Amino acid sequence: MTPERPPFVLSFFQDKVGHDLAAWRHPEAATETVLTLEYQARLARTAERGKFDMVFLADALTLLPENNSAFTTTFYFEPLVLLATLAAATKRIGLAATVSTSYGEPYHVARAFGTLDLLSGGRGAWNVVTSMRESEAWNFGREGSLDHATRYERAQEFLDVVRLLWRSWEPDAIVADRASGRFADPDKIHPIRHRGRHFAVEGPLNVPRSPQGEPVIVQAGASSIGKAFAARNAEVIFASTPDLRSARAFYADVKEAAVAEGRRPEAIKILPGMIPIVGRTRAEAEEKHRFLKGLLLPEAAIRYLSQWLETDLSGFDPDRPLPDIFDIERIRGQKGRFANIIDISRREKLTLGALAARVAATRTHCFMVGTAEEIADEMEAWLDGGGCDGFNILTTHLPAGLDEFVDEVVPLLQERGRFRADYEHETLRGHLGLPFDEASLERRGVSEAPRYHARLTETASA
Amino acid sequence: MTPERPPFVLSFFQDKVGHDLAAWRHPEAATETVLTLEYQARLARTAERGKFDMVFLADALTLLPENNSAFTTTFYFEPLVLLATLAAATKRIGLAATVSTSYGEPYHVARAFGTLDLLSGGRGAWNVVTSMRESEAWNFGREGSLDHATRYERAQEFLDVVRLLWRSWEPDAIVADRASGRFADPDKIHPIRHRGRHFAVEGPLNVPRSPQGEPVIVQAGASSIGKAFAARNAEVIFASTPDLRSARAFYADVKEAAVAEGRRPEAIKILPGMIPIVGRTRAEAEEKHRFLKGLLLPEAAIRYLSQWLETDLSGFDPDRPLPDIFDIERIRGQKGRFANIIDISRREKLTLGALAARVAATRTHCFMVGTAEEIADEMEAWLDGGGCDGFNILTTHLPAGLDEFVDEVVPLLQERGRFRADYEHETLRGHLGLPFDEASLERRGVSEAPRYHARLTETASA
Repeated sequence: MTPERPPFVLSFFQDKVGHDLAAWRHPEAATETVLTLEYQARLARTAERGKFDMVFLADALTLLPENNSAFTTTFYFEPLVLLATLAAATKRIGLAATVSTSYGEPYHVARAFGTLDLLSGGRGAWNVVTSMRESEAWNFGREGSLDHATRYERAQEFLDVVRLLWRSWEPDAIVADRASGRFADPDKIHPIRHRGRHFAVEGPLNVPRSPQGEPVIVQAGASSIGKAFAARNAEVIFASTPDLRSARAFYADVKEAAVAEGRRPEAIKILPGMIPIVGRTRAEAEEKHRFLKGLLLPEAAIRYLSQWLETDLSGFDPDRPLPDIFDIERIRGQKGRFANIIDISRREKLTLGALAARVAATRTHCFMVGTAEEIADEMEAWLDGGGCDGFNILTTHLPAGLDEFVDEVVPLLQERGRFRADYEHETLRGHLGLPFDEASLERRGVSEAPRYHARLTETASA
Repeated sequence: MTPERPPFVLSFFQDKVGHDLAAWRHPEAATETVLTLEYQARLARTAERGKFDMVFLADALTLLPENNSAFTTTFYFEPLVLLATLAAATKRIGLAATVSTSYGEPYHVARAFGTLDLLSGGRGAWNVVTSMRESEAWNFGREGSLDHATRYERAQEFLDVVRLLWRSWEPDAIVADRASGRFADPDKIHPIRHRGRHFAVEGPLNVPRSPQGEPVIVQAGASSIGKAFAARNAEVIFASTPDLRSARAFYADVKEAAVAEGRRPEAIKILPGMIPIVGRTRAEAEEKHRFLKGLLLPEAAIRYLSQWLETDLSGFDPDRPLPDIFDIERIRGQKGRFANIIDISRREKLTLGALAARVAATRTHCFMVGTAEEIADEMEAWLDGGGCDGFNILTTHLPAGLDEFVDEVVPLLQERGRFRADYEHETLRGHLGLPFDEASLERRGVSEAPRYHARLTETASA
């Protein structure tokens, strides 16, 4: 692997029975076993057999009403609990979960990811998100969600506090000298004494340092604020770009913003979501695609699109184009995703019904439909064409969509020298080539934690 | 097993390298591997080999400064993450973790335990606690901890909300009818619309119902408010009673209070903590005990006792009795534990140094030191003498303390017909003989959730 032909980074988006809104209706989908640990563990082990860098779990803090539980799999496992079971079921693959910064406590989140990272031997990653849905706010005692800018301001402080807590134990703080009776060196365990706008956290964390320094930071923001947040903080970015043209624009944009933040462009791995449909022939792949489209109820698709566009679309003619009534300034939710949908609608001149079906199947990720060779070619074209550093692999339906990719596409990438034949490292940072940077917080203006805290050596007093 | 000779309920307190403050210094303690998943999984699998009802994880929301990290293992894994790895490493044993009600959100906690309970096939349990330490408050933006009564008021509302969320999906809400495209029945998924003093939570949960109905509720309060809370809510109670006399008093007290709450006494299982030290002869067991005592640094013991009594004891003569300067009304922390310590000190006429050593080794749990036969006899005397329904087994040091109990004491209890030879049920409720009671919340005055929520069938509107 020469620098001119860099290897792919591959993440597997472990998404219930597949990413398609109607995936659960597919005869091969694991609809009956989706709630079992055995099924979830099998998926992660298959991704590990395919030498993926990591598995990734999404999340929402509500039973998405807009998805409509009548039509699709609306539930969400609590991602850290599911991820921890996957840590026990696997050995080498990285483990990423989404946790919101909008309604939790940094101390809880730092502990949970710190514990996962420690117990997994340094395989953890946190996808840092903000929560924008009104129905999420209602589960946490609020009347409505925070505005876009405040959400990101809170997210930045939340993330900084969590990272300070992860660093509150020096790597060699545990001495464990049986002879002297000295377990740890209190001079190497530091409170953080954070007093900020949103949080006041004393520390230190009660979880020691993990083998990879700290979990990898993942982000997926697509709005202008979201991209700036990602450029500043993220080490892996999940993108959602429907074609190479938009992927290139996003890639260049974020890497440039990262450089403006004083970061090396290689310190961020950009992974667009990609949904492969593999056939022995292109015709077979296209037939698979058609079959899947036939499972989608048009009503479910329109309801789903209504959610993303924050507008009830059920009264519009599905055979005509999307009405021109949308204004991104009014969107409270994912502005980047909103803009992508409007863009696809206009450029591809889709009817409302076709747009809804497209979004129900892909959100705004890209499809690659064809033989394994054709898909591998197209993946290389994206990587070599400045569109990505790898892909977040979504699937039409599970487990088949993952099995086929691992059995048919991954071996080709390995033969071509574009993907590892086996793991070469123990930690996720090792897989990704993203070493822990102890100085990364201080450099960006977060004050250093005090070196000592009296509480640690003083006896409690009355 | 006749009703006159009921079987034991056994819980294993999975506590790092053992319960003794100096456990980590023992040559057989797993001090070097305590941070690994392999070691933690091995402990749980050993407990499962011993057919224990459950493993149990304690917690604190701070790096306990009073324990002093220089002297002992002060860290705490985030318990739900650790517990989830144990779920994947085991098949039948119940899984209990401590989570505080003082600084979290009920929606997060309901999801985490709901997910654990679902993925483990109905083996989850929640030890409901309040956080009383000042240093815990400081990690969550507060200047000090809530007062005792407010902590328990918040705990009750927190618990009620979590249980309503667990019940927000009816057991048969998922239809998954591929032919019609109907995934779930929205009429069987209910918001909870809770508006209380401490929380406002809309619901429903985004996690379906678990196979055992809902996780088992565990509690360990020993103060008068704590005992009332347990009598009202708990299905398993961890007690801390140093001898059969105090165990009988606690047992009678709590069962009577449960009856006053309208509950059957059999609906609560009371498990005192017990630390076995097993020898081939009594002399060998006593020698093991002496060896362990020799590992404890007196300074560490005094610091530790200072924490429980909320008073700096380092200036007092360790060879004289505990000074008579304590007032339970001034204690902000665990009042029940405080009272037990003062009681032991007075009844057994211990010097300050001896009391500190005793508390460092046992807290206020009981020791049983002798041959396997002697320990089994004593356990039976407690069960048949009205002192308990079983035990929460603590260990001096791990993994040896658990291995010995499983290999030497459990087989005797099985031969005597006092403990299961193998698991007879799939769920923790099955092991414990505590069926899910759908009516238990309503009966105690918590309002029923509305039967329907418009959000679930309406499309999002602009």
